[in-house]
Amino acid sequence: MVEIVGSAHAIADPDAQSPYLHELRGLYVGKTPLVLRPASTREVAEILAIANEARIGVVPQGGNTGLVGGQTPSPDGSEIVLSLSRLDRVRAVDAQGGTMIVEAGVTLAAAQEAAARVDRLFPLSLASEASCQIGGALATNAGGTGVLAYGNARALTLGVEVVTADGQVWDGLRTLKKDNTGYDLRDLFVGSEGTLGVITAAALKLYPRPAETAVALAALPDIDAVARLFRLAEARGHAGLTAFEFMSRVTLELVTRHIPNSKLPLRTPAAWYVLLEISSPETGGLADATLQRLLTEASEQGLVTDAVVAASLAQAQALWRLRETASEAQRHEGGSIKHDVSVPVARIPEFIAAASATVERVCPGARPVAFGHFGDGNVHFNVTQPAGMDKAAFLALWSEMAGAVHDVVGALSGSISAEHGIGQLKRRELLRFKSPLEIALMRKIKAALDPHGILNPGKLL
Amino acid sequence: MVEIVGSAHAIADPDAQSPYLHELRGLYVGKTPLVLRPASTREVAEILAIANEARIGVVPQGGNTGLVGGQTPSPDGSEIVLSLSRLDRVRAVDAQGGTMIVEAGVTLAAAQEAAARVDRLFPLSLASEASCQIGGALATNAGGTGVLAYGNARALTLGVEVVTADGQVWDGLRTLKKDNTGYDLRDLFVGSEGTLGVITAAALKLYPRPAETAVALAALPDIDAVARLFRLAEARGHAGLTAFEFMSRVTLELVTRHIPNSKLPLRTPAAWYVLLEISSPETGGLADATLQRLLTEASEQGLVTDAVVAASLAQAQALWRLRETASEAQRHEGGSIKHDVSVPVARIPEFIAAASATVERVCPGARPVAFGHFGDGNVHFNVTQPAGMDKAAFLALWSEMAGAVHDVVGALSGSISAEHGIGQLKRRELLRFKSPLEIALMRKIKAALDPHGILNPGKLL
Repeated sequence: MVEIVGSAHAIADPDAQSPYLHELRGLYVGKTPLVLRPASTREVAEILAIANEARIGVVPQGGNTGLVGGQTPSPDGSEIVLSLSRLDRVRAVDAQGGTMIVEAGVTLAAAQEAAARVDRLFPLSLASEASCQIGGALATNAGGTGVLAYGNARALTLGVEVVTADGQVWDGLRTLKKDNTGYDLRDLFVGSEGTLGVITAAALKLYPRPAETAVALAALPDIDAVARLFRLAEARGHAGLTAFEFMSRVTLELVTRHIPNSKLPLRTPAAWYVLLEISSPETGGLADATLQRLLTEASEQGLVTDAVVAASLAQAQALWRLRETASEAQRHEGGSIKHDVSVPVARIPEFIAAASATVERVCPGARPVAFGHFGDGNVHFNVTQPAGMDKAAFLALWSEMAGAVHDVVGALSGSISAEHGIGQLKRRELLRFKSPLEIALMRKIKAALDPHGILNPGKLL
Repeated sequence: MVEIVGSAHAIADPDAQSPYLHELRGLYVGKTPLVLRPASTREVAEILAIANEARIGVVPQGGNTGLVGGQTPSPDGSEIVLSLSRLDRVRAVDAQGGTMIVEAGVTLAAAQEAAARVDRLFPLSLASEASCQIGGALATNAGGTGVLAYGNARALTLGVEVVTADGQVWDGLRTLKKDNTGYDLRDLFVGSEGTLGVITAAALKLYPRPAETAVALAALPDIDAVARLFRLAEARGHAGLTAFEFMSRVTLELVTRHIPNSKLPLRTPAAWYVLLEISSPETGGLADATLQRLLTEASEQGLVTDAVVAASLAQAQALWRLRETASEAQRHEGGSIKHDVSVPVARIPEFIAAASATVERVCPGARPVAFGHFGDGNVHFNVTQPAGMDKAAFLALWSEMAGAVHDVVGALSGSISAEHGIGQLKRRELLRFKSPLEIALMRKIKAALDPHGILNPGKLL
């Protein structure tokens, strides 16, 4: 397969392979005979055709920013890594039609920029957007902070180009708003974590860019106040409510402690903080006025004890940075056991209470660092080790802790993976929370589309 | 299988069967030994388990309003009709969470009412809403007039309960906003036209009800003006633009001629008409003011030559009725060959011109009756027979006419079925417009989930 991509793009040297074999959290390390870096859909197809014939496992990889080990090959060294990074062309941008076609290796930031250059918004937004790639974002149906107003990666996808397990190219790059001609293959490939086909390009939806945006950070006395503020913000902000991110006190304490130049711009500490963003399609101060009115009303109702509204773009970015560095800040406090879960929005307070009690039971002194996308019901319920505890000893509790937290999620009819996917990390847990029938249906589809099981083996299913 | 539902609900008498065997357009007539009317998901499951064992074809049917023959059994009398009408319970409505769970046999109108009773909006809206049912609406991924602002049936579905071909019940009734745990089975069943499983219940999204709605009918000189008015309406109305329906002059001529108590409330005839609706989440006259401003601006730009804004709910309903009876009005003019197609929005003018020329070529004197959901790129390009022509002779041109119009659609990268589905009507055309690979992928999925081919045989694939 080396000749398909050329020897310069077939990496066999272990040192040069290293960036492809280690992932961010250090939970998984893989081994591979070859990292292949094809330059085109055609080359991807040729590689898969051979791999399928030879029954060689292929692990598709984008920006290698996934958090569940979906992009890491097996440590047994039997699988090839297929990096999509060189498929990095923006094929077309149609500002008026509100669509663009980009290849899998285009970074999310580059896709956002391609839209911005024609005065449009591609609203998918993640902490890893500088390095994560469109192919991976779609393969994992990525979420992020824009989901509340615009939906997740699946909702933003009009069509996909996919190379099948046996190396055929499906051109599903449609840009139509309506198309009822057969099974929804697009949505089957999106979110399948590279186990059903390799996404090589996508047709994406673009939106008008908000003319004005107003951002605030609010302090709240308890999680019920967060829930009530969300309902108020929905009622007053309508479609203009473009972000409602919540963070616990501990979350912001870690951020201000460990992230350089970060500072809490509020006078008194509070139990919870919410980052609110209101956008307006027209200029004239509507976004700011709506946000100010909302905060005044919330304050009168006792929901908000303190708040700051960004007076400049720089201040708005500083507020956003407090939220975006929440995960990074935790790394400086030793081990962290992460849960990316969702529950019905109204049940978030119940979840926080029950999950916090669970953590204290499994590991007294461990610190829940809860934050996330309140309006999506999505909590990043991360747990930082007790101060002074041995990191390895804490991380050894991962299964027990995650199992107990997931039990809480299950009891509240939630999901054990809101936006990160299953990968390797939650593969066994999946079997606990899905019915045998749903697992069987998924396996039938997997067997139908990848009969030799060469696509991302050992992931998801 | 009679004992499962009880003899009162197993219809063998041909006269009593008749309503289940004839569809609205009279294009298809089926024959069946039995129409079964189960009362529960459990009964559906028991019927399918037996049918799967015995290799008996089963045709799921809702309100029998489909327009492509998807709900009609084969004329060879070998298939059972499975009517879902008795599964008509609203299982749960959660106003605050913005979700409801309804069974397949609930009519769309009853689902809308269940939402309205708790001051919420279920925005799916079709001409057939009084009799079409949720199961059928989801199985065909129905569209309608609300798609512009709220999306089609798929976009409004959070979860489904499905009975599989072998009679197992998949409880996929989730009400979560985010859930990244495996393949998107929900969206695979939605739109599969009863060929992969039988939808017995669905969890649906609810929205806040607009506080105010303003409706206008505008007259426009040409189709380019319609396109420009749409862009202006998007720019001024934003998320508040909840309908933009267009109709040709001939369309409204047929409506005012044949529909009792219908009258065109504009002084001078025009080439095109647009029904606009602007909604506002708050009271205070914003919707009306926005609509008036938009029409003034459009008039100044020469896009609109005349317009009327509804001054009362009754007037608004009368304007909507002009649009909703467009299909019905055609029936009084003899034969009609229908095309439910979509193209990229910007290419609608091109489509109208080319498709009209095509019609004149295939059948000189035939009258294009074009209307539909402009903002979705969705044209109901129906063709009424020339006055005085023999109806049967005209309808004999169906394949030739449809093939030629679909060729125009294909050349513009459009879809031969925007919202009605494939059913029996477009099954052969599907093979012309899909790649062999896409057909093969669909067949693999069909074989995986319905290995004996008992579910809605001869439909879609």
